[in-house]
Amino acid sequence: MAYSLLERINSPQDLKKLPAGQLAPLCEEIRAFLIESVSKTGGHLSSNLGTIELTVAMHRAFTTPMDKIVFDVGHQCYTHKLLTGRRQQFDVLRKLNGLSGFPSPRESVHDAFIAGHGNTAISVAIGMARAKKLKNEPGKVIALVGDGAFTGGMVYEGMNNIDTLNNLIVILNDNKMSISKNVGSLSRYLTVLRTNPEYNRAKANTETILSAIPLLGSPLVRALQGGKALLRRGLYHSTMFEEMGFQYLGPVDGHDVIKLTELFQNLHHQTAPVFVHAVTVKGKGFKPAEENPGEFHGVSSFDPSHALDPDVAPAASFSTCFGQHLEALAESRTNVCAITAAMKYGTGLQYFYRHFPDRFFDVGMAEQHAVTFAAGLASQGMLPVVAIYSTFLQRAYDQMIHDVCLMDLNVVFAVDRAGLVPGDGETHQGIYDPAFFRQIGIPVYSPCNYAELTYWLEYLLDQGKGPRAIRYARGGEPETLSLLGCSKQPYDVYKAEGPAKTAFVTYGTLTAEVLKAAQLLKQQGTDVDVYKLVQINPLPDGLCEELTRYDHILFAEECMEQGGIGDSLGAALSEYRWPGHLTLRGVHSGRAIPHASVAELREVLGLDASSLANAIERD
Amino acid sequence: MAYSLLERINSPQDLKKLPAGQLAPLCEEIRAFLIESVSKTGGHLSSNLGTIELTVAMHRAFTTPMDKIVFDVGHQCYTHKLLTGRRQQFDVLRKLNGLSGFPSPRESVHDAFIAGHGNTAISVAIGMARAKKLKNEPGKVIALVGDGAFTGGMVYEGMNNIDTLNNLIVILNDNKMSISKNVGSLSRYLTVLRTNPEYNRAKANTETILSAIPLLGSPLVRALQGGKALLRRGLYHSTMFEEMGFQYLGPVDGHDVIKLTELFQNLHHQTAPVFVHAVTVKGKGFKPAEENPGEFHGVSSFDPSHALDPDVAPAASFSTCFGQHLEALAESRTNVCAITAAMKYGTGLQYFYRHFPDRFFDVGMAEQHAVTFAAGLASQGMLPVVAIYSTFLQRAYDQMIHDVCLMDLNVVFAVDRAGLVPGDGETHQGIYDPAFFRQIGIPVYSPCNYAELTYWLEYLLDQGKGPRAIRYARGGEPETLSLLGCSKQPYDVYKAEGPAKTAFVTYGTLTAEVLKAAQLLKQQGTDVDVYKLVQINPLPDGLCEELTRYDHILFAEECMEQGGIGDSLGAALSEYRWPGHLTLRGVHSGRAIPHASVAELREVLGLDASSLANAIERD
Repeated sequence: MAYSLLERINSPQDLKKLPAGQLAPLCEEIRAFLIESVSKTGGHLSSNLGTIELTVAMHRAFTTPMDKIVFDVGHQCYTHKLLTGRRQQFDVLRKLNGLSGFPSPRESVHDAFIAGHGNTAISVAIGMARAKKLKNEPGKVIALVGDGAFTGGMVYEGMNNIDTLNNLIVILNDNKMSISKNVGSLSRYLTVLRTNPEYNRAKANTETILSAIPLLGSPLVRALQGGKALLRRGLYHSTMFEEMGFQYLGPVDGHDVIKLTELFQNLHHQTAPVFVHAVTVKGKGFKPAEENPGEFHGVSSFDPSHALDPDVAPAASFSTCFGQHLEALAESRTNVCAITAAMKYGTGLQYFYRHFPDRFFDVGMAEQHAVTFAAGLASQGMLPVVAIYSTFLQRAYDQMIHDVCLMDLNVVFAVDRAGLVPGDGETHQGIYDPAFFRQIGIPVYSPCNYAELTYWLEYLLDQGKGPRAIRYARGGEPETLSLLGCSKQPYDVYKAEGPAKTAFVTYGTLTAEVLKAAQLLKQQGTDVDVYKLVQINPLPDGLCEELTRYDHILFAEECMEQGGIGDSLGAALSEYRWPGHLTLRGVHSGRAIPHASVAELREVLGLDASSLANAIERD
Repeated sequence: MAYSLLERINSPQDLKKLPAGQLAPLCEEIRAFLIESVSKTGGHLSSNLGTIELTVAMHRAFTTPMDKIVFDVGHQCYTHKLLTGRRQQFDVLRKLNGLSGFPSPRESVHDAFIAGHGNTAISVAIGMARAKKLKNEPGKVIALVGDGAFTGGMVYEGMNNIDTLNNLIVILNDNKMSISKNVGSLSRYLTVLRTNPEYNRAKANTETILSAIPLLGSPLVRALQGGKALLRRGLYHSTMFEEMGFQYLGPVDGHDVIKLTELFQNLHHQTAPVFVHAVTVKGKGFKPAEENPGEFHGVSSFDPSHALDPDVAPAASFSTCFGQHLEALAESRTNVCAITAAMKYGTGLQYFYRHFPDRFFDVGMAEQHAVTFAAGLASQGMLPVVAIYSTFLQRAYDQMIHDVCLMDLNVVFAVDRAGLVPGDGETHQGIYDPAFFRQIGIPVYSPCNYAELTYWLEYLLDQGKGPRAIRYARGGEPETLSLLGCSKQPYDVYKAEGPAKTAFVTYGTLTAEVLKAAQLLKQQGTDVDVYKLVQINPLPDGLCEELTRYDHILFAEECMEQGGIGDSLGAALSEYRWPGHLTLRGVHSGRAIPHASVAELREVLGLDASSLANAIERD
């Protein structure tokens, strides 16, 4: 397909020169381009198809980088990237050294802020708008926020602090569902706002009439007069967003690029913070995605003529293994509940949901609530399993400490996407949780394959007391690790043929690289024993004593080095006054993590087999 | 004063037997008792004086522990403790082995959950209510939530998940201010609900009339008919709480114990989640507290005849030193902003606020927003100083990682109440932040006296780049540490007279104990050098090399041992292949921390001078 209009747009200035009549055709070109491009590279499709017109209208009406556009979350930014001179790089989207799938100020002056985690844009935008005021700088700050984000509390913290900032615009991109189907009260409320065609008309009619009410004597009119101020409030200030101090505009059609542009242009004269409620269709223009946007939220490459290719979006993964096994375990264990924060499919909990809808809870993008809600359930004898991606669990760190640990409550944390995460880049890495858990004393198990995951999940449900955690990688089990099966031991040792002076210690799927590193060294004549931990916190009984036999230990983990599990081994070994040398390999704070495949990330971070082997040779 | 009614109440059952006519006199007795008692022991006064009638009414209408009362936050629970058999222990309130100042399930079956951090009660209550449903158990779950808590986003995450739980009651204790004066949009909104006397009357009148509208032909009535459903919604569902799915009752007088009791009793037949909006007076019945409730929020003992004793509530503290110095530094540094989360006075920022109101931001109990808002400011060239208590900063851990660190933004964290915290117990300890900061690579300075605080605060404002932190204890500087002054060096060494084989390493106000321990050992003939760090992360250049000279190092810190600064020293020393022995003394995860003075806490945790000295002797 030719993109004759799109090819003329290399900057927002080019867009502004386009005749208004060509805006709608441009949007169609962008739509076709995104479907074609994402089908090849993978990436977020549905969200981007839904925000094409909004983004075009923003760049017509506003002028970045003077005006700031802050995305929430960032995976709606592809059209923005297309319009700001990055079209040529879409074939390397989310690839190492290619275009990031999220906004990145390092990539373009038009990207105002990063946005890998949700709920942040309003707070960021308030900060920027406030700074503009303090510095007497012109320009607007626009937060484009998906409706899913309104299930996260931080959005309300932000709305509570908008004050009278008349350079702040919040655009609600209401596509009627976040990543999973939207949940909760706010979702129902938005439906009311959206689906009531009377809303605007009745508002206008009634106000006209109320203003015209004469001072008559009838009881009807007297009562109305008495309640007039109230009625007006009830009508004009009847949205929650107005209660929070916004001027509310909407709902407006989020796919009418001309009307949106006009609306945004009129905002140059805003007198208060403005809230624009735009209704969009997620996956707009691509039937399979419109019909099933959840499946197309973040996709691997696919065949655009129809649907997902099961080979590139594998059905089997740690997540589905977890979900299916939890479903089976919950049959006889009637106190088991499952909680997710807007990631029903991502965490594999759809199986549990279908079988036990009463014991399944999707709380929205509300990790804090998820954990404290679990604490409430546990305090009454239920056994909640909280399944959250490692990177998002960071949101609930205080709740883990205060509501779960201090009460020593029976809560199982199922930490998905633990370790290095492909494609999404620095904002989505699961590299902090082991050190968290260690610091606050939560036992942690880190299976390297499905057999271990299913065994230890059951173990944790049945043997544990108090909080405990199981963590596992994104994607499927590597074949080499599948073959290892499950020994049901807290750790396993794979001895070299000859007597070894050196030991590798690791856990999780990184074991594949470590075993390969040991093979490489073997080929060079060096024998290395490999210790693979499943129980990573506290360190298994007997491990340290066994390890003191070696002269050199290399500990490798996909975790921050500072305070991680390797550090705990170092501390334990020093208790033994072990005289050997410990080499830690993990993620060093301050080390930028690019968006890339896991294999590439390991190379970049020195965690691939040959880097690990080299680390031994060098010493 | 005699407490003839109160003395007959040793359980909620006793309260239920009291004739209704004696409830108001009982409330007055409780009021007098609390003023007398808290004036002796210290504790939270204003909040508790405001919730007497609410609590009495709850215990008349509901039956704990079958019904659950969840406090948010817990410092409103004194009346609850009085009514549940703990009157005799009020003279040891907040003392070691005495009564906790917060709800504690370990203390009483009537205490449903802990509540040291705010915003948690609705989520906890939803968990409990849901568990009751799943287990077919009778009883209500009541969350008593202060209006201040509604500035925290987690409350909205909870409200978004109330579903149709008809055993859930949320009581808003609206005292028109949280710990500091309430801020933000929600506060203004509650004022509208509270202060509009027309509200309920107009609501009833108009509905009656709307129901009676005949099918007449006049344009007025036709318009009203067209908008009738909307009008009803606008009138009956015009509170935000109804939008969230609650049945809203209120506003009601929170000091009318009879009416409150009736209202609560009627809730036994609720058909939906209920939201009761009770208006109370913080500090009710004690003039100095009514007039200035902020000052009486959490108090040391005082003279009830008038106001605070300046000797027991010292004006000089690390907090005020910080606040006054920041005010001075901000004079010439016009990009410096100060942000606090509902702790303007607690953090000493009132000085800054008076001088630079435009650059001061109290965002409410919204730590997540505070940090991300700071990131937004910093991205536009401002230099925000985020002053938050260590324990509450846990709420913003993800925002520190995602919004500040990944962007390497210029944000200064001023961490108040760092280390052991007296009185409040396990929920308020500042013992996690050093390991957080270390893990995510934020430079941290930990002054032990005012001179160091002022020097290093200025240093961090002027020299730093990216996020950096300064942390300091609650209360004032110990005299022994005041005398040390400030060397302007990242660490200082206090050499023993003789040659030492042993070194103590520590930071912050714990240095006082460590110096004393060295003295004790000196008296026993053992020379020990003392290293006092100000820069604790990363460890200062040269420190490790210097320390390798010793045979034995004891590192003491008021921080979690796992992953803390001591651990980082261990890791660094092992890089040097140091053959000596490192003893770490900190807070071990799993170790319960009682409510007690700092001196007592140090004894309990083995961090007092003689325990530290003994640790050396034993080895």
